[in-house]
This record gives sequence, C-alpha cells and structure tokens, in this order.
Amino acid sequence: MNHRVVVTGGAGFIGSNLTDTLLAAGHWVRVLDDFSTGFEAFLSQAKGSARFELVRCDLVAEDQRLAALIQDADTVIHLAANADVRFGWDDPKRDLIQNTVATHNVLEAMRVTGVNRLVFASTGSVYGEAPVIPTPEECPFPMQTSLYGASKLAAEGFVTAYSEACDLRATILRFVSILGPRYTHGHVLDFTRQLLRDPTRLVVLGDGTQRKSFLHVTDCCRAIISLLDSDRRCEVYNLGASGYCTVNESIAWICARLGVSPQVEYGGGDRGWVGDNPFIYLDTRKIRATGWEPTYSIRQAVEETVDDLVANRWLLNRPTDP
Amino acid sequence: MNHRVVVTGGAGFIGSNLTDTLLAAGHWVRVLDDFSTGFEAFLSQAKGSARFELVRCDLVAEDQRLAALIQDADTVIHLAANADVRFGWDDPKRDLIQNTVATHNVLEAMRVTGVNRLVFASTGSVYGEAPVIPTPEECPFPMQTSLYGASKLAAEGFVTAYSEACDLRATILRFVSILGPRYTHGHVLDFTRQLLRDPTRLVVLGDGTQRKSFLHVTDCCRAIISLLDSDRRCEVYNLGASGYCTVNESIAWICARLGVSPQVEYGGGDRGWVGDNPFIYLDTRKIRATGWEPTYSIRQAVEETVDDLVANRWLLNRPTDP
Repeated sequence: MNHRVVVTGGAGFIGSNLTDTLLAAGHWVRVLDDFSTGFEAFLSQAKGSARFELVRCDLVAEDQRLAALIQDADTVIHLAANADVRFGWDDPKRDLIQNTVATHNVLEAMRVTGVNRLVFASTGSVYGEAPVIPTPEECPFPMQTSLYGASKLAAEGFVTAYSEACDLRATILRFVSILGPRYTHGHVLDFTRQLLRDPTRLVVLGDGTQRKSFLHVTDCCRAIISLLDSDRRCEVYNLGASGYCTVNESIAWICARLGVSPQVEYGGGDRGWVGDNPFIYLDTRKIRATGWEPTYSIRQAVEETVDDLVANRWLLNRPTDP
Repeated sequence: MNHRVVVTGGAGFIGSNLTDTLLAAGHWVRVLDDFSTGFEAFLSQAKGSARFELVRCDLVAEDQRLAALIQDADTVIHLAANADVRFGWDDPKRDLIQNTVATHNVLEAMRVTGVNRLVFASTGSVYGEAPVIPTPEECPFPMQTSLYGASKLAAEGFVTAYSEACDLRATILRFVSILGPRYTHGHVLDFTRQLLRDPTRLVVLGDGTQRKSFLHVTDCCRAIISLLDSDRRCEVYNLGASGYCTVNESIAWICARLGVSPQVEYGGGDRGWVGDNPFIYLDTRKIRATGWEPTYSIRQAVEETVDDLVANRWLLNRPTDP
C-alpha cells in the first residue's frame, strides 16, 4: 500500500535518505524541516519527484500550523530532533524543547486531525548505561546519563500515553548511531575532518576502548519502511547492528580508507565526555523477528561514510563547525 | 543537621504538611507556590514560624527568578506539579508544562547556583500498567498510560541526567496516592462530596474493583525528611503503603465514617477513565530497608481524610469544582 507520509526533519541525514527511499517505493512525501541542521541540498534528488513536497516549518514555534500540514497524510515519521548527544550541556534547554516539546506538538496535531500512524525515532541512549548488554527493549527501568537520552525518553513517554488514549498506532524505534551518506555529526565525521586537515595527528576523546554499535542509514530506512503497515497499537523496537566495534577499530578503518597513519593522541578516561556511554550494544532480536536484517557490516558503514565525506567536503567545513 | 529547604508547591496538600513537619523539626523553609492549586490557608500554621518564608512564584513563567530564590538553600524539595491524573486530556499540554518543563527549570536553577540536594516527587504512575506487582523500582522499561505519568517520567529522566553531569544528589520518590489532612483532589474527596450532598446515592467510575494503594501524608512527610541527609548520588525509591484496597472497600469505610448507606451506581468497566490503572501496588522494600515504615493503615488514612473534609467543607465546595 502506498502511504501519504509526513517526514519531520526530512532535510536531515536520516530524513533525506528516508525521503528518497520512500519516493522510490512509490509513497507520497511531505518534508517538514526548519533547516536548523538539515540541508536543502540533501533533497535535490527528491525535488525531482511529483510526489514530493517541502515545507519549511519549526515544530516548536509554529505548532499551530502542524495540524494543517499533516491532516491529509496517513502517517507521520517524526525524525526532527536535536540529535547531538555530546553538546547537550552547551544549551541545557535545547533537548527539552527540540525533542520533547516538539514531539508533544506533533502528537497533539495528530490527535486533533485523527492522523493515527506514527513512527518515532528514539535512541539507544534512553537506556543510559544499561545494566544488561546486549540491551533488550524490556530492560530494567533506565537511569538517564544525557540530556539527549532524557529528552527522547520523555518524548517516548508522551508517544505511549497518546497511543493509549488516542487510538494512535505508534512504532518507536530506538536507534544506535547511524552512519552513511549525508552523515553530518559524530565521531566518524570528526575523525575524518581532522585527518583530511592533518593526516599526521588524530586527537581522540577517551581512551579509544569505548564500544559502539553503528547501523548503515540504508538499513535504517529499510527497517522504517518495513514497519509502515504494522497494525500494532504501540510497539518499541531496538534498531541496531549485529555487533559493535571499538573506537580504536573504527580509527583503523578510517585511516586505512584515507591512506593515512597518524599519531593518535588520547584524551584519556573510559568515556569521551560527560554522558558518553562506554558500551552501547542493543539486543535486536525483536525487530529481526519481523524479517528485517542489516545488510551492511559496521566496517562497511564506516567506510561508506568516510567515502561520502571525502566526496562532499562541504559537510566537513561548514561555518558553524569547530 | 538543620537544612535550608526550598519547597516548591509548598502551599499544596503534601507541600503544606511537609512544610509544617520541616519547621517542627527545626529546618528553615522557603515555600514557592503559584497558588494554582495550593491555598494560603494551608500555611497559616507555618506563618507563625520565624524560619518560614512564602514566595508567590510561577516556576514556568518566572524561571529567571528561580536561581535567586534557591541560591541560599542547601536542599530543594520539588513537589509543585499538576497532580491530577484523570483530567490530563482536558488540556493536553498542561502536564508537559507544569511537570516536565517546570522541573527542568528547577534543575537548571540548581545547576547555575550549585545547590545540589534535590528531593523530587514522582509517582507510581510512571510504571503505567506494570507487568510486575508489587512493582519494584527496577521493573521493566515502562509504557505510559497517562499524560501525568509521562510528564513525571520525563521529569525523572532530566533529574537523573542532571544528577549525572552536575554533581546533584537527587532522591526520586515514586508516590502512590497520598491521603490525609488538606487533601484536595481524588476519589476520596469526590465520594465524600457526593455523599455530603446526597447521602442516598453514590456514582462510582469503573466497577469498584480497581485496587489502589494509599499512604497517609504524615508517613509521606516522614519518609522525605528521613532521606534529607542521604549522600547517595541519585536514588529512586517507591513510597507506598504495605498493601492496597479496592475502591469498593474504600467506599464502605467512607460510608461507615459518614454514617450513610447510599445506593451505589457503577459506571462500569475495570477502570474509571482512560489511563486509570486498575491495580497500583508498589514494592516498598527498598525504602523500608532505610528504616522507614508507614504508621497508618490504608483504612486509617481514608478515615482521617474523610474527617478532615467534613471539618473543612470549603475544600469540597470550591468554585472551580464540578
């Protein structure tokens, strides 16, 4: 069945990849984006489709517009968020507003219009430093270690409450870090930028032993689309790779891909920053049971990300970047 | 040790009882309240103390004042909230703003000032319809069934994230429903009001089999004060009674106390409203291990509440009440 889908944050990394995939599959897509972190350039392919529409909209400041912008859709895929875990403390209200309040605004627009199918992009960060690894969806009540995780947990709570009361069919996906084309922040970008500027030296936060799980954006988009026709009332799925790598392994892959052999300088400690989680690895048996499987290895995901950044150096040299 | 305590929501039901208890124990108390649901009358005893101060303040609209209002305290007990679970859908943004955003504002004021001891009043509603009963603090990742529960879960998440990053010693208490003097909303008040108006008839939401756990406010305040000197970084405790009663049992106790024998009319269904939880009973072994024990039975808590309402009928006949 073809859907009429509103993708919030559709000009971002995951959102623009998803938009292209949705259009290729025959769906109709309206992107809502405030371009605070998204790029119109990411939608150049989408703009060629008659089934595509782009609306500049701030989900917080312009919440009164939302009902009109979603009322003719059957599905909302809510990806818009401040997605940066590390810099939450630079502006402690940002995650609350951009992630929690914005999600509430989307939910309220859905309640008012009766649009009742939602996919919500949450994060493995809601588990904090999980006591169980690989971490299942039903793990013990988590303690938050970042404002980002707290803001997404908060948003999840409102999604489930709306689902309970408003006949909303909600799919909550807890993502690991996603890699691939149009990647705009995170340590692979940081390392690639450093090494393209100076191939002899790489500064690494923490001690390099942090273990992380990464999923290729193509696999992420395939998972979202595979769940669009789900009739479950409210379902939570972890979405991640089958394994994990250390930061040091990812450094080796990046260096090999770029053909460089830098001196690596470690900041020290077992985590990169306050709230960094030294080991993220999600139990993905539940979503695998639906038939979805990742098709990229973590190494391939890292390598394709590096290749894309090399081919799109403007992503590394934006005026707002450090 | 005597503390300098800011009590938000200190003019409310629990807050005013706590303020009296804190003052009696020799602590210094500054109450912040916007009087949206609190009453100055509840603080008439407190006003006789030289260690008491009352400041009218809206934690959301006046967040810029908060740092100045807490900076000379060592402890913040954050009780201010919209505490009504049932009427969340009348104004779907209220819980988000009054509970989540307000708590974030308090946390931010604590971060800025360095005041680092917090007691936060959360709720057993964060467990939604818990799969494990009695429900322990570490129960499986919950799904929210009310905007109230979602807003408190959200606030808890920010409390733990601030605790992680800002050296905050936070105690999160997940309350069951609290009863006792100055009780201002909930089914005991609703039933008492109905029966004082018409002793021959009582309308009950649901089928009366809902099982609920109630704690007397005196026991609640004793628990809060017993944890004030805790040095734990961030600790979550359930706070509830040793058992539970059915709504029908509570009706029998209320009727006996009032000396009435009404015809009871049930709305039907196993819950009173969307988001009502048919069985709330928390595992309180963790807080009991600290030495605290409830001293009132549930029946005593119900009876004292009825007595107080009979003696203070203005609480039953406020202009804003149904």
